Amino acid sequence: MNNESYLLEGERLDDLQLCGYYLIQNPSLFCFGMDSVLLSNFAKVKKGGKMLDLCSGNGVIPILMSAKNKAESYKGIEYQKQSVDMAERSIKLNGIEEKVSVVKGDILCIKDIEERGTYDTVTCNPPYMLSGQGSENENESLYIARHEVKCTLKDVFEAASYALKYGGKFYMVHRPERLCDIMYFSRKYDMEVKKIRFVLPRENATPSLVLSEHIKGGKPSLDILPSFIVYDKNNNYTESFKNMYYGHL
Amino acid sequence: MNNESYLLEGERLDDLQLCGYYLIQNPSLFCFGMDSVLLSNFAKVKKGGKMLDLCSGNGVIPILMSAKNKAESYKGIEYQKQSVDMAERSIKLNGIEEKVSVVKGDILCIKDIEERGTYDTVTCNPPYMLSGQGSENENESLYIARHEVKCTLKDVFEAASYALKYGGKFYMVHRPERLCDIMYFSRKYDMEVKKIRFVLPRENATPSLVLSEHIKGGKPSLDILPSFIVYDKNNNYTESFKNMYYGHL
Repeated sequence: MNNESYLLEGERLDDLQLCGYYLIQNPSLFCFGMDSVLLSNFAKVKKGGKMLDLCSGNGVIPILMSAKNKAESYKGIEYQKQSVDMAERSIKLNGIEEKVSVVKGDILCIKDIEERGTYDTVTCNPPYMLSGQGSENENESLYIARHEVKCTLKDVFEAASYALKYGGKFYMVHRPERLCDIMYFSRKYDMEVKKIRFVLPRENATPSLVLSEHIKGGKPSLDILPSFIVYDKNNNYTESFKNMYYGHL
Repeated sequence: MNNESYLLEGERLDDLQLCGYYLIQNPSLFCFGMDSVLLSNFAKVKKGGKMLDLCSGNGVIPILMSAKNKAESYKGIEYQKQSVDMAERSIKLNGIEEKVSVVKGDILCIKDIEERGTYDTVTCNPPYMLSGQGSENENESLYIARHEVKCTLKDVFEAASYALKYGGKFYMVHRPERLCDIMYFSRKYDMEVKKIRFVLPRENATPSLVLSEHIKGGKPSLDILPSFIVYDKNNNYTESFKNMYYGHL
């Protein structure tokens, strides 16, 4: 069975440039970007551990992380059926069904589908925008992926805290203008922010993304890691960014 | 009466290099540093407005701000009597008693000394360290100035929120490892963090200080301003840092 045979109408196959893995995407739904790749490199899961990805979309984060870590299992929860369906086919196509799965589920009802304190690592690339912000011309699926319609940032932190073991780590990527929300809800749900790393499009610019690491039950004290600069003065990727992007760091 | 006649034993007179102002300091007490100067430039108070400085020490912030703003009054509250006494003499020496004052007081009892919602701007360069951290060899006065012995970060936010008018601004300088505390308590006391600016010793380093602007009753949305780099590759102050430090920005 060749890879193309896994595709439905309107879908495409993207080379993840890692372990020969591919990802099925549909341009009319949410397609992954730089932020997902950065999160999958920033996040770690211990050997033999269990990892859960919230708002998992087409499964890009658990699939990428499975290529870079030696965990026992990588599971995604996604609200939209069409995305879950694509993720399931990507997992089969890559032959990683034994360790990677994406299931349809609502993180607001996580208590019905997961046991408390099960995971060593939880990740999330959540919808960035508040409900009502941004373009109204998007289709419903894209709108749900980009806006806090089906879950808010508070819901994400509540679900992550419930799913994590004590001492387990939560990793997120988000927009810097939400940093205060991130820090407020993180502490409210007993996950202390331990590391943040800003991503800047170029030197001396304002940051465009923030990566954060949180520890369930951790003690207060934050490390602000040196920022990642994406482009140098000649508009090429910087060396440090290439290392981060391709996961050598 | 010459300036030296204002000094007591062990005290010295420092040139603030601004409007011909001087400041009386005692090296056995807390002496101001780069952080106070940066805060006094980062903070603004509107023309005809009222400004309050918490944990005011020898009064360096209200004195510096009085040289750069056109407010009606600049007032500091300080717990340690010896620092208040020095501040009072610095104010007289500079001939600015009509608009600048520093009073002895405990910010935990701010409700006894100030009316709620009085100030347009509140500033604070608080003790950076938790009680019990750092050197035990400091004298009591230095220990109080540097550690959260007489007031915690939570107390500072509670006092600032009480003293500010609705829509008024709170400005603080602190260590970046406390950013999560800052954001958590700011929101808890109804002051939204609107701007932060990191200060880095040199390019690509981790930040050593963070300046923050908070608005009482403000809506969530944070601007992370481009960082200030202190030293260039030749160990000279950068141009942007000199502009900030000397208040031209």
